[in-house]
Amino acid sequence: MFTMANRIITITRQYGSGGREVGEKLANALGVEFYDNKLLEIAAGSSGIHKSHFEENDERRSNSFLYLLSTTYGQGGVPFDDALFFAQLEAIRKIASEGPCVIIGRCADYALRDFSKVLNIFISAPFEVRVKRAIEVYGIAEKHAENYVKRIDKQRTSYYNYYTDKRWGQPQNYQICVDSSALGIDRTVDALKRFADDFYGRT
Amino acid sequence: MFTMANRIITITRQYGSGGREVGEKLANALGVEFYDNKLLEIAAGSSGIHKSHFEENDERRSNSFLYLLSTTYGQGGVPFDDALFFAQLEAIRKIASEGPCVIIGRCADYALRDFSKVLNIFISAPFEVRVKRAIEVYGIAEKHAENYVKRIDKQRTSYYNYYTDKRWGQPQNYQICVDSSALGIDRTVDALKRFADDFYGRT
Repeated sequence: MFTMANRIITITRQYGSGGREVGEKLANALGVEFYDNKLLEIAAGSSGIHKSHFEENDERRSNSFLYLLSTTYGQGGVPFDDALFFAQLEAIRKIASEGPCVIIGRCADYALRDFSKVLNIFISAPFEVRVKRAIEVYGIAEKHAENYVKRIDKQRTSYYNYYTDKRWGQPQNYQICVDSSALGIDRTVDALKRFADDFYGRT
Repeated sequence: MFTMANRIITITRQYGSGGREVGEKLANALGVEFYDNKLLEIAAGSSGIHKSHFEENDERRSNSFLYLLSTTYGQGGVPFDDALFFAQLEAIRKIASEGPCVIIGRCADYALRDFSKVLNIFISAPFEVRVKRAIEVYGIAEKHAENYVKRIDKQRTSYYNYYTDKRWGQPQNYQICVDSSALGIDRTVDALKRFADDFYGRT
């Protein structure tokens, strides 16, 4: 479906691992487009669903059973969560078919499973490192930070496992997984840049 | 406990991923000692248990409950499986305290959890790639190969999960996980060599 030259890279990241920053710097280093929240805008634009709904439900499923019962979308009566997910899948496929890019999260590895030569990356970091980052970079209150990180982990895992036929964070789903604290953000980017160059044959 | 200069690298590998070959070539590239089956000889030598027992029970637990009931070892009446495991742990710690090395499998990442600056690597490959390697490299009969790979996966996972407080093959247990089929064996070795050089500050 694609030539070797199409560098389509997905980054799945644990909350607080710095995976988004790694992804943005990697996109810059490779000179390709970068998609994080911008993806939600594109999904909103093409689906006609307001962007705020994508933001509110970003990488998590609604917990309320009543909500699922009461809220359906469109002619087919698709649960609203699912409508958001499918709109994102479409947006991811559209983006990837337009040119080389780095896409953060949103089950992009699953969305692009039929595309050839996609490079799937997983970024992790030890729990205590992620809690520290949540406090220092994202401004989460210190007393809530541990629980907050755990909750986001659960949400992302459950979202991914619900919508895909894979399990979140299994090394066999990715060509490379890196603990970003091993080398630090910038040298992790360097290592991934070299890996991507090798993977795509230094085109 | 150790200086930065001590390059202690563990490799956990899926059966058929070529992880052993990656490890041996990485050890050569780094100019450090390489331990795979040699580890069992060392454990045998220091424990006084014959090497054949280590080989027969290598990275798997005996399945028979009767065997567990009937066979204990030493004064404390430790189950024989556990005696083998503990002898290996000791051997791994002894090896790592003697100098830089690459150690394959045997829960070495767990054995060395209190050593500082250990680089833990996980090598995977897609199931079909591993089945192919089992047939072509290890001479497993084609009709049995898929089940054979699945069985070894189960044995290694269950062995690791039983003896450690971690789960086999979770990216957060390793600084880096690589699918060896993404770049091929030799270029995977190059990538890991660079990662190790970065990790140890190019000493």
